[in-house]
Amino acid sequence: MSEPFSRVALIGLGLVNSSLARVLRQKAPATEIVGCARSQATIDKATELGFVDRVTLDPAQAVEGCDLVVLGSPVGTFAPLAAKIGPHLAEGATLTDVGSVKKAVFAAVSPHVPPGVHLIPGHPVAGTEHSGPEAGFAEMFEGRWCILTPPPDADPAAVERVAALWCMAGMSVELMSADHHDAVLAITSHLPHLIAYNIVGTVTDLEEETKEEVFKYAAAGFRDFTRIAASDPIMWRDIFLTNREAVLEMLGRFSEDLSALQRAIRRGDGAYLETLFTRTRAIRRGVIEAKQV
Amino acid sequence: MSEPFSRVALIGLGLVNSSLARVLRQKAPATEIVGCARSQATIDKATELGFVDRVTLDPAQAVEGCDLVVLGSPVGTFAPLAAKIGPHLAEGATLTDVGSVKKAVFAAVSPHVPPGVHLIPGHPVAGTEHSGPEAGFAEMFEGRWCILTPPPDADPAAVERVAALWCMAGMSVELMSADHHDAVLAITSHLPHLIAYNIVGTVTDLEEETKEEVFKYAAAGFRDFTRIAASDPIMWRDIFLTNREAVLEMLGRFSEDLSALQRAIRRGDGAYLETLFTRTRAIRRGVIEAKQV
Repeated sequence: MSEPFSRVALIGLGLVNSSLARVLRQKAPATEIVGCARSQATIDKATELGFVDRVTLDPAQAVEGCDLVVLGSPVGTFAPLAAKIGPHLAEGATLTDVGSVKKAVFAAVSPHVPPGVHLIPGHPVAGTEHSGPEAGFAEMFEGRWCILTPPPDADPAAVERVAALWCMAGMSVELMSADHHDAVLAITSHLPHLIAYNIVGTVTDLEEETKEEVFKYAAAGFRDFTRIAASDPIMWRDIFLTNREAVLEMLGRFSEDLSALQRAIRRGDGAYLETLFTRTRAIRRGVIEAKQV
Repeated sequence: MSEPFSRVALIGLGLVNSSLARVLRQKAPATEIVGCARSQATIDKATELGFVDRVTLDPAQAVEGCDLVVLGSPVGTFAPLAAKIGPHLAEGATLTDVGSVKKAVFAAVSPHVPPGVHLIPGHPVAGTEHSGPEAGFAEMFEGRWCILTPPPDADPAAVERVAALWCMAGMSVELMSADHHDAVLAITSHLPHLIAYNIVGTVTDLEEETKEEVFKYAAAGFRDFTRIAASDPIMWRDIFLTNREAVLEMLGRFSEDLSALQRAIRRGDGAYLETLFTRTRAIRRGVIEAKQV
C-alpha cells in the first residue's frame, strides 16, 4: 500500500491543512480524511469543495481511530485543543502540526499527549497571503522546505512517516531543534511580516486623500508589503505572542541598523548608503541560487 | 506624422531609458534615437541590442538638434549633466527626466536650461529590480502611472508632448507639484525601499551558517524584501540623499509605530496586534482595486 496513513484528522481547515487535504486526495486517494473546524461555515465549505470524507465540529471525535492528526489552526488554540483530543488519540498514532513556531507548540501540546502517541511538530514553510479552505491548492508545497522538530526521544519511524507525508507534497524535509527553528524563522519570516505590518499600518494612519494616491503609486515598492501584511491576522498575532523573544531579538538588531541608516541619510553620507545597498543586492543572488524566488 | 518627436536624446541607457527606447522603436519608428552613456560598455551593449540609431559618450553632442532630451542617469549626476548640455539644447526643445525625486531635479537642472527650452520633469512610476540596457523591455510601463511636475509657468504644449510620450508607452499621466510628488513617493516607494535595504542588511551581518538557512527558508517572507533591496545602489543612494526630508519624516512615523508594536509584543498585547493586522489586511484591497498588483 502506498498510503503512509489510512485515516488522517485535519484539525483546522485553513490554507495549509486544506492544501494538504488536496495533496492527499491526489497522491493517496485511499486515505480517509476527517475534517474538523470551529465554524459550521468552514465545515460546509470543505464539504462543498470535496476534500474531506467526514466532517465534525468536535476535535475529540475527529481524532478517533486516526493514525495521523495534523493541527492546522492558529497556534494559540493548540493548548486547549491538545487537552481536548489527548484522551481520544489512538495508541500508536502520530500527532503533528503546521504551526510557524515550534518551541511554544511543543510546550502547549506535549503535556496532553498520552504514552504511545508520537508527537512530531512540523512546519511546512509555504503559504500565500490568502486564508480559508477555498484558498488552498495542492501545488503550494512544491519545491519548498518542511522543517520537523522532533524531540530527542522521538520514534525515528514516526519522524519518517511525517517526513514521507511532506515529501509526497513535493517538499524537502529538514530536521532541527525547535529552538533553532524559531530563531531562523524569526529572521526569514516573523521579522519581515512584522515590518510589513508596521509599514502598512503607518500608511493606514495617513489622511484619506493621501491614501488614494498611495494605492495608485503602490507599484513603486509599497505593493509588495501590502501582500505580506494581508496575511491572516489571528495566525500572526499568535506567532508574535509565542515567538516573542526571538522576534524581539531580531527586531532589536533591525532597529539598531535602522538608526544607523537614518543617521547616514540625515548626514548625507552617500558612501555608507552605497556600500549597504551594494551588499544587499548580493544577497538576492543567494536567494535565487537557493531556488526560493 | 504620428511621432511626437523627430529626434530624441536618451542620456543614460539603464532600465528606464532603454525601455523607453524600445517603446519608441515599436510605436514611433521614424523617431531617431541618440543614446548616450558614461561607459563604452553600455554604449556597445545598446548598439548590439539595436534600440539606438546613434551613440556617443558626450552628452553635449548627444543633445544637438534633438527636440526631446530624456535624462535617465542617477539623479546625483543631473546638475553637472545639465551644465554640460545646457548650451547645446536646441531652441524649442523639451527637456525631461525619469528621476524618482522631483524637487531636487528641478533645483539641479533648471539653472542650466536656456530660455526657449522647456523643462518638464517627469517620473514614470514603473521598474524592476534589474538595471542596465539589457534589463529594459517595452511593456514595463503598461498600466502604470507617470507623474509630471511641470513648473507653474511651463508651456502647456510642451507638457502635452511629454504626456503623449508616456501615454504611448501605455501609462496614465498625472500632473502635480514636485513637493507633493516627493511626499507621496516617500511613502509608496522610498520608505519601502529603505526598510527593505535595512532588513536585508541586518541579515547580511549574520554568521555564514545562519545565512545559508536564511536563503533556504526565504520563501516565508524574506524573499520579497531581497527583490526590492536588489535595486540599483547608486540610483537609490541618490534618491535618499535628494529626498532627505520627506524620507526622514516618513521614517520618523514608521519608527514611532514600530516602537508601539514592539511594546505590544513585549507585553503580550494580543488585541493590539490583531487590530493592527486586521487594518493592514484591508489596505491590500485598496491596492487591488487600484489595479496596482
